[in-house]
Amino acid sequence: MSELIVKHIQKKYRRHQVLKNISFTLEPEKIYGLLGRNGVGKSTLLRIINNRTFADSGEVILDGQSVVDNEAVQRRFYLMSDADFYPSGMKAKQAFQWLSQLYGTFDWTYSEHLVAAFGLDVNQKIAKLSTGYLTIFKLIVALCLPVEFIFLDEPVLGLDANNRELFYSELLSTYEDRPRTFVIVTHLIEEIAHLIEHVLIIDEGVVTKDCDVTLLMNQAHVISGPQTAVRDFTQGLRVLARKHLGEIEMAYVLGELPRDTRTSTVSIQQMSLQELFVYLTDKVGE
Amino acid sequence: MSELIVKHIQKKYRRHQVLKNISFTLEPEKIYGLLGRNGVGKSTLLRIINNRTFADSGEVILDGQSVVDNEAVQRRFYLMSDADFYPSGMKAKQAFQWLSQLYGTFDWTYSEHLVAAFGLDVNQKIAKLSTGYLTIFKLIVALCLPVEFIFLDEPVLGLDANNRELFYSELLSTYEDRPRTFVIVTHLIEEIAHLIEHVLIIDEGVVTKDCDVTLLMNQAHVISGPQTAVRDFTQGLRVLARKHLGEIEMAYVLGELPRDTRTSTVSIQQMSLQELFVYLTDKVGE
Repeated sequence: MSELIVKHIQKKYRRHQVLKNISFTLEPEKIYGLLGRNGVGKSTLLRIINNRTFADSGEVILDGQSVVDNEAVQRRFYLMSDADFYPSGMKAKQAFQWLSQLYGTFDWTYSEHLVAAFGLDVNQKIAKLSTGYLTIFKLIVALCLPVEFIFLDEPVLGLDANNRELFYSELLSTYEDRPRTFVIVTHLIEEIAHLIEHVLIIDEGVVTKDCDVTLLMNQAHVISGPQTAVRDFTQGLRVLARKHLGEIEMAYVLGELPRDTRTSTVSIQQMSLQELFVYLTDKVGE
Repeated sequence: MSELIVKHIQKKYRRHQVLKNISFTLEPEKIYGLLGRNGVGKSTLLRIINNRTFADSGEVILDGQSVVDNEAVQRRFYLMSDADFYPSGMKAKQAFQWLSQLYGTFDWTYSEHLVAAFGLDVNQKIAKLSTGYLTIFKLIVALCLPVEFIFLDEPVLGLDANNRELFYSELLSTYEDRPRTFVIVTHLIEEIAHLIEHVLIIDEGVVTKDCDVTLLMNQAHVISGPQTAVRDFTQGLRVLARKHLGEIEMAYVLGELPRDTRTSTVSIQQMSLQELFVYLTDKVGE
């Protein structure tokens, strides 16, 4: 079991420095959430790690070797990718066969279970699948290949609510059966908050948060009450945003709270991961 | 201002009768939610209405005329469509120009506002846009064309939480400025529940719900309490699903409740639209 080390990745795109300096380490057997606003370069970063495009500088290392043009290393990765990755006219069931040869093996028993559970028509051409079923096809591939690092780029894109729930529960059960590293990129943050163990947030080309989800959320609170009480309480604290509802002020605070909060007239609640993300990355009013 | 009438639409797809008999009417100046599970044929139906594909039978009528190959009628519609609708290599700003000629006019002032608000790079080629920015480009087109019927097929696909909120608020404000008919297809049902006035649910090839959202939700409740009390209370009612949390039973009920509920020991809460949809369309255990 190896760590994957991402070091000082830079990438320019049409004169725009999208990735300025990206560094982090992925540990074995962990579920990561990789979060960032639209256009921040999340998919580009995953494509660099998976040797689909090149960084301008920096490196990605597994077992002391660079991943660039390294087939042995790449066979330990899987990236949920665009439909045009597959030969034109290929059917879903042919793709399973093709990938099984490429990666050496494929979990046919589990894939049969998933095909039935999601209702995928494996005789359908990949290019003809609807948005939702294309995602389902790619998810089944991701969960059945014998890889150590699985990069799920928008794993619930176009999935209905019932199928999203099914995917989340299958992810947890396959992870329990065969622990490996998952990196999930999604904009439905609240839905994965209970799945991920570690969160990476990318903003303006760098990693702005790289921490355990539980530790992070223990520091994220919503303080609400009469405005003067909330202002008193939050003095000296890091307030990400303030909202008002009539006479009530809500302050979104990140960081340690004062130890003794019993005498205060404010109410203290846990912030949600999605709220935390929105307020950390919102550019309005800056 | 005209009604759009969809009558007895049937469509087979690879020996599978996807649309069995679809009929409904879209009234002018109303926001509709068109909901259905993955693979139910929502996008196919929108493509039939917008003359991108043909029904096996049935018709779609505006002002007494069929929409099939009817250019004058089609210019009153817009369908958020795939990227490959646009000539290859076309930039976003060229597409605005091209569509402006096709439709006769384009709201340049509003598009400038939206381009800035979402941060779209209009010099980017459409084929090179990320999933999120491709959606944003298509949304801007949808909101700036001079059409009466706007069909938004997954309008928030790949959008981050901040941009989803921005879209919902822009939709309401442009609708207020210039009322027209919107048909929204989405799997993020909870997020549009407060936007839509009327809901259409498609299941197994037919329209299973066609009603005012407020009226529908007034009939959708979650009854919870000790199992025996809940069973007593829900006798004779239409229970879509039952869940258990320790000793507590929750029954998801659709329909009129008994008039006098004061003496009961159960608690009665409003169901959410997403819960209602999931339990109405879930095939598990059938």
